[in-house]
Amino acid sequence: MPTYDLQYPKQPYSTVKRYDTRASYSLKTIHTIVSTSPILHVSFTDPSTPFPVTLPMIGALGSFTRPSADITDVQDLYLHGYISSRLINLSRSSTPGNDTAQTSPEGPVGLPLTITATHLDGLVLSLTPNSHSYNYRSATLFGHATLVSDTEEKLFAMEKITNGVVPGRWQSTRTPPNKGEMASTSVLKVKISAGSAKIRTGGPGDDKADLEDEELKNRVWTGVLPVWTEIGEGVAGGYNKLEGLPADVEEWRREGNEERRRHAVEGASSAPGKLKTDEE
Amino acid sequence: MPTYDLQYPKQPYSTVKRYDTRASYSLKTIHTIVSTSPILHVSFTDPSTPFPVTLPMIGALGSFTRPSADITDVQDLYLHGYISSRLINLSRSSTPGNDTAQTSPEGPVGLPLTITATHLDGLVLSLTPNSHSYNYRSATLFGHATLVSDTEEKLFAMEKITNGVVPGRWQSTRTPPNKGEMASTSVLKVKISAGSAKIRTGGPGDDKADLEDEELKNRVWTGVLPVWTEIGEGVAGGYNKLEGLPADVEEWRREGNEERRRHAVEGASSAPGKLKTDEE
Repeated sequence: MPTYDLQYPKQPYSTVKRYDTRASYSLKTIHTIVSTSPILHVSFTDPSTPFPVTLPMIGALGSFTRPSADITDVQDLYLHGYISSRLINLSRSSTPGNDTAQTSPEGPVGLPLTITATHLDGLVLSLTPNSHSYNYRSATLFGHATLVSDTEEKLFAMEKITNGVVPGRWQSTRTPPNKGEMASTSVLKVKISAGSAKIRTGGPGDDKADLEDEELKNRVWTGVLPVWTEIGEGVAGGYNKLEGLPADVEEWRREGNEERRRHAVEGASSAPGKLKTDEE
Repeated sequence: MPTYDLQYPKQPYSTVKRYDTRASYSLKTIHTIVSTSPILHVSFTDPSTPFPVTLPMIGALGSFTRPSADITDVQDLYLHGYISSRLINLSRSSTPGNDTAQTSPEGPVGLPLTITATHLDGLVLSLTPNSHSYNYRSATLFGHATLVSDTEEKLFAMEKITNGVVPGRWQSTRTPPNKGEMASTSVLKVKISAGSAKIRTGGPGDDKADLEDEELKNRVWTGVLPVWTEIGEGVAGGYNKLEGLPADVEEWRREGNEERRRHAVEGASSAPGKLKTDEE
């Protein structure tokens, strides 16, 4: 684990220009936003249309070659989900015979992907519509995707992805996947070239003229409505035979709700523009 | 208001291929998903990089020329938010002198955008990792963006966007925006060419071999953890002078939480694959 705060290099395509005081290039900050996001938006260019393709997918960070590397360190992003045949085919045609070779003399190998993770943390209500804002944490990763063909690495990624949705779920279900499941499941590995995050916390900010308007301040409520993702009590399926959720999953559910709620509420009153991550 | 269910035309770039039983092209279904999503992911191609640009933005549907058109009808999408200078500049260079002209002999005018709205409704936990899934509602719109220059239309869009975040907020704050605010705010109008939605509801589904494995069924909990967006109690800002949230906003907050919770819980036990919108 590095003892210093690693930063992604600023590339022309990854540098935040507007409200750059809200920007961060820290691996720890960016990876935390990505790894706590149950859905990632994955975009790529399809040469047959002027519209980029954007797919909601499930992802997990990990390092197969250095499994001890944690979230503050260099990681790859593994993607799974409703991978369109277009994405698979475009990635396959960008995957060299040996998919451990991630660069070629012409540059990085693989399909260029832009991956976005966004958490809405609050609705910021001010005196005028123009000063309204959101509290949010948003991260973007830029990288090149290749198909994972090595069975061990595929299993490593599938376990990371499954346990990223519910901790320990891989260990508590029927594994490993059988031959048919392995064959029908595609996992993409994204070698990350750059990344950035943008974060807003804090209360509303209005212009001087409005702040001096006592009549306005006396009639308009200003502040933040905190927003978070709530996970409800389990709804048992038709063939479930167990009394209730396993104790560890129930605890994870309750504690996660409370942590997300607290994060949103605390962010509502912290200094505006202050960078704040889950760990701070 | 049309008396039949309007559908977006299926274009090569908009047709859902995987799990197409989960697909919908209904304007009502797609527009409902978009208009209840506080954040939209907006993607476009930047010729200077192989990576598409994806920005989290705020949007609202509306029809300036036919204000009575509702969500079941043809609408434009207005976008506002952290509009990057790249997006503004690319759109400006794609905007003709008269921005009411939305087509030219060469085809639609404006910058091609892909806009995605995704709601996570549940974590679907099954007997094996490979059968795990999400309940979700996802919609994609494809269209061409131009800058809105007409003052009346800009005000129409700004009101729609503000009231889309909190109903009635435009009317209860200091409006209209002053000259400086109008000049510094850019609004994009997206003329929609196509759209699609994908929806999953229901409980887990496992393969026959696993369903016949009594030992497995006796040790693994299967079902759905419903997921929704929760809006917390207002946190007053530093210069707020009011006792609490206005009664209508407080009611909207509470009822919205309850409605989103109920939607996620009911979706957890409805028939798998059944198309379900907020109205049904």
